[in-house]
Amino acid sequence: MHRLHSFAALSPVTFLERSGRAFPNRQAIVHPDGVITFSELVGRARRLAQALTRFGVKRGDKIAVLSENSPQVIEIHFGVPAVGGVLVMLNPWLPSADITYMLAFCEAKVLIVEASFLDKLSDADKQQLADLKQILVLGEVATASTNTLSYEQCLIDTDDRIPLDVNIEDELDPLTINFTSGTTGRPKGVMCSHRAAYLNALGQSFMLSLGRGGRYLWSLPMFHVNGWGHIWTNVAVGSTQVVLPGRTIRGKEASLIKLIPEYGITHLCGAPRLVRALTESPDDKSAFAGITITTGGAAPSPDLISTLEAMQVHFIHQYGLNETLGPYVVCEEQEDWLPLSVLERAQKRARQGIATLHAGTGLRVVDDAMQDVAQDGNTLGEVVMSGNTVALGYYKNPEATEKAFKDGWFHSGDMAVVHPDGYLEIRDRIKDLIYVETDYGWENISSSEIENALCRYQGVRDAAVISVAAEATSAALPVLVAFVEPHRDQHLTAESLFEQCARELAIYKRPQRIFLSELPKTATGKVRKDLLVTDAINRLQHT
Amino acid sequence: MHRLHSFAALSPVTFLERSGRAFPNRQAIVHPDGVITFSELVGRARRLAQALTRFGVKRGDKIAVLSENSPQVIEIHFGVPAVGGVLVMLNPWLPSADITYMLAFCEAKVLIVEASFLDKLSDADKQQLADLKQILVLGEVATASTNTLSYEQCLIDTDDRIPLDVNIEDELDPLTINFTSGTTGRPKGVMCSHRAAYLNALGQSFMLSLGRGGRYLWSLPMFHVNGWGHIWTNVAVGSTQVVLPGRTIRGKEASLIKLIPEYGITHLCGAPRLVRALTESPDDKSAFAGITITTGGAAPSPDLISTLEAMQVHFIHQYGLNETLGPYVVCEEQEDWLPLSVLERAQKRARQGIATLHAGTGLRVVDDAMQDVAQDGNTLGEVVMSGNTVALGYYKNPEATEKAFKDGWFHSGDMAVVHPDGYLEIRDRIKDLIYVETDYGWENISSSEIENALCRYQGVRDAAVISVAAEATSAALPVLVAFVEPHRDQHLTAESLFEQCARELAIYKRPQRIFLSELPKTATGKVRKDLLVTDAINRLQHT
Repeated sequence: MHRLHSFAALSPVTFLERSGRAFPNRQAIVHPDGVITFSELVGRARRLAQALTRFGVKRGDKIAVLSENSPQVIEIHFGVPAVGGVLVMLNPWLPSADITYMLAFCEAKVLIVEASFLDKLSDADKQQLADLKQILVLGEVATASTNTLSYEQCLIDTDDRIPLDVNIEDELDPLTINFTSGTTGRPKGVMCSHRAAYLNALGQSFMLSLGRGGRYLWSLPMFHVNGWGHIWTNVAVGSTQVVLPGRTIRGKEASLIKLIPEYGITHLCGAPRLVRALTESPDDKSAFAGITITTGGAAPSPDLISTLEAMQVHFIHQYGLNETLGPYVVCEEQEDWLPLSVLERAQKRARQGIATLHAGTGLRVVDDAMQDVAQDGNTLGEVVMSGNTVALGYYKNPEATEKAFKDGWFHSGDMAVVHPDGYLEIRDRIKDLIYVETDYGWENISSSEIENALCRYQGVRDAAVISVAAEATSAALPVLVAFVEPHRDQHLTAESLFEQCARELAIYKRPQRIFLSELPKTATGKVRKDLLVTDAINRLQHT
Repeated sequence: MHRLHSFAALSPVTFLERSGRAFPNRQAIVHPDGVITFSELVGRARRLAQALTRFGVKRGDKIAVLSENSPQVIEIHFGVPAVGGVLVMLNPWLPSADITYMLAFCEAKVLIVEASFLDKLSDADKQQLADLKQILVLGEVATASTNTLSYEQCLIDTDDRIPLDVNIEDELDPLTINFTSGTTGRPKGVMCSHRAAYLNALGQSFMLSLGRGGRYLWSLPMFHVNGWGHIWTNVAVGSTQVVLPGRTIRGKEASLIKLIPEYGITHLCGAPRLVRALTESPDDKSAFAGITITTGGAAPSPDLISTLEAMQVHFIHQYGLNETLGPYVVCEEQEDWLPLSVLERAQKRARQGIATLHAGTGLRVVDDAMQDVAQDGNTLGEVVMSGNTVALGYYKNPEATEKAFKDGWFHSGDMAVVHPDGYLEIRDRIKDLIYVETDYGWENISSSEIENALCRYQGVRDAAVISVAAEATSAALPVLVAFVEPHRDQHLTAESLFEQCARELAIYKRPQRIFLSELPKTATGKVRKDLLVTDAINRLQHT
């Protein structure tokens, strides 16, 4: 056990042991069925750690979780790393084939699964689960089996007084594997360390001004990049997490506004789509005044920002990726923006910004030779990151790791300009992650995955997929559009390409419109997606 | 250069580079002669780093500083570590022999010194300084010499656009050496790492709820444990530091209250003595409402706490030592204390408390066998600490290091009980650091040093030194009292002992009263200082 007098491994596990002692009677979690204090939360996490130890979980073993937002997911974020386990949060709304692939790929030793999601799996999928050492079911256990037990039952026979082991052997050990949405066929498993989770949490507490009096509404899915790391942030600073089942929020974003006064919410986060839905609620919006709303995932429009300003929301715009354990860039507001017009200020605030506190100096926009681009608001370069909250690499994928993390920097694939004030603004995405409506809410998907599926179809020379914002057309939702360039002398129909997509892609990844057209490109061969967006808007408006 | 994509050495140097980009036009420092923005501050620190590099400063070289609070001391806290230098802040009010000893002991390569302090040194002391590679004078250079230059002049010829090198080779490299007040003859040099300073700063920003809008008044001396690390904290979070020359505060503590509205102060810190002086000001005290005052060094009395509560001060009580880079324990307030009476609550808040966020789980109260004492509010044990902000050890003193940091824990020498709620309360100090009025303000001195000086006098069997609070007598200030037990058959006079003290001790370390008496002791031979305090109060009241 590594323990020098002036060294303690940085791990978020320490946050819960500390908050359990510092704020024993404070509300750690509020949920529809009641309240969990910090003292109770640390007790439950300790019980889980002991149960996992009993199942033989050791340093480096993977523990997969298939669950919507719940109080249990919070305790799991501490109990698992306390025994050296690596937490693999899976998106429970993915097709079950994807889920079983991920479980097999990460060699999960234990699966913690909500009963409803277990029931949804086919028999064949369930057969695959037989390889797992242990399945712990959140809720009613429908089918008893030797390796399928009730999660709650397993916690009962344990002692809640034995402290979590916070003496992690190496703070650079992976704590999480979060799967990307997958650009080249299969999703990649992004590994982040204990040190990353610890420092991200402290940085986020500062970026969000989240402290002891905070009441944080879970409007983000916890399975997506560990809810931007905010599970750990909230526990670190002793704020209260308000957890509603995912289905309570899904489709009822506007009704969240009622929860703000009901639960005394001070902070919530969400992609611009969720934030917009909130602002469009017909309900009384006075509850917005003074609360903090953080957005990310996509850039908020200046229009949305000025709406929020008018509502006196303390609005924060952050940017990050799976590979940075969430937020890594923030649009810090400047006092000298205050005299600007609302629109001018909103345009400044719609930019991604500068490095967060925990990112420090590990953020650049560079050309192909790794030289910083000019701060002229015009020269495009790739956003690269290097720092304590940047991922260790991709699990069991040295080629992808070497490619994405070459030269000591993570290459985000996002293209940005840097303005004279040092703020970066993303202009294009090489890998084109697109934000779409899905069955369970919203998801970032990769245009490359769709483009690759289209290019695999005979006769296709090239393909480019873009998303057209709902605002730009009369559509209620963003429209996923593919442009497909046929090989010379090849005849293709949109219908055959729709069929190809249906064969190869999950339903929410399929383009709604496909246009056959030559693709406009730059001198160096990059598709001019900006022109395609304009083209698509024109075509959609005339159909 | 160590630079992996998912690792960046934790160093407070990164804070300034980040804040220079994040808050370029914000006030970093406000002082009587003007304002320094973060952009200007980072520029000056960069210039200093280049000047030091020009003088050949390399990793591990010691840079000593002899200055009162000033804006330059803030930039020095970044420019020095940026070149790998180790910062040695010296108490400029110490006798010059002590200062020259410390300079020689730490082998300082560069001395940065305020002109007035340089002038005070004797010719012999100045002769000793000739060994230094470089002396940089803050203010007018009285005597030109090859190695004595103007600090400002050295900064002029440098470029303020070259970023500070924040790629520290090893985050566990020492960043500071802070001298203890010395218990066994010579002071010890406490070494703290870059990692310690970084994590302490983030932890303190949380403990103090100090953020972007903060305006922090420097009422602590920056030379004392780097102002509890708050120089780095303020720069990390982009708050404004209000710096007044030390002499402005000295002797005029009560007048600080006028500065609160004048400078829009939100935070200030000080030993209970300073805080009490503030509360006793005849001026309008409404400015206190809502500000945050942090105290430490000695326990605040329940009376002081209830006075502050009545003034609606957000009051924080922290505890720490030189060896923990300042605050390490905090008395977190509990919501369930609110219904208590003012006095009951004040008694709870006068306790030292629990581990700070950055201390995590690295705080215990143990018996001689390193077992935790019972949480019964009665069993005494020694406070021990282990964690990222605990010192690396004592510079060039392996014996003292081995003794104080044995078993992987720093042994504070402070004896405490642990209450049933887990809060520790210090009851006695083995080494008895005593808080006294000095020529320049206040200082913690060690009773052992005085006791040792007395015991060296022929005929003295044992000695014990205590401090009697001003409140307990009619004195205006605390009274330093020595009890001396003569050897059997020896005749001693208080006068001869006063002379002994005058020979061996700096003026502020000399007891004001000396009583000849047998010393009450415990079964294990420890002096019952609690009884001596009562005895002293009685004697003082009857003289």
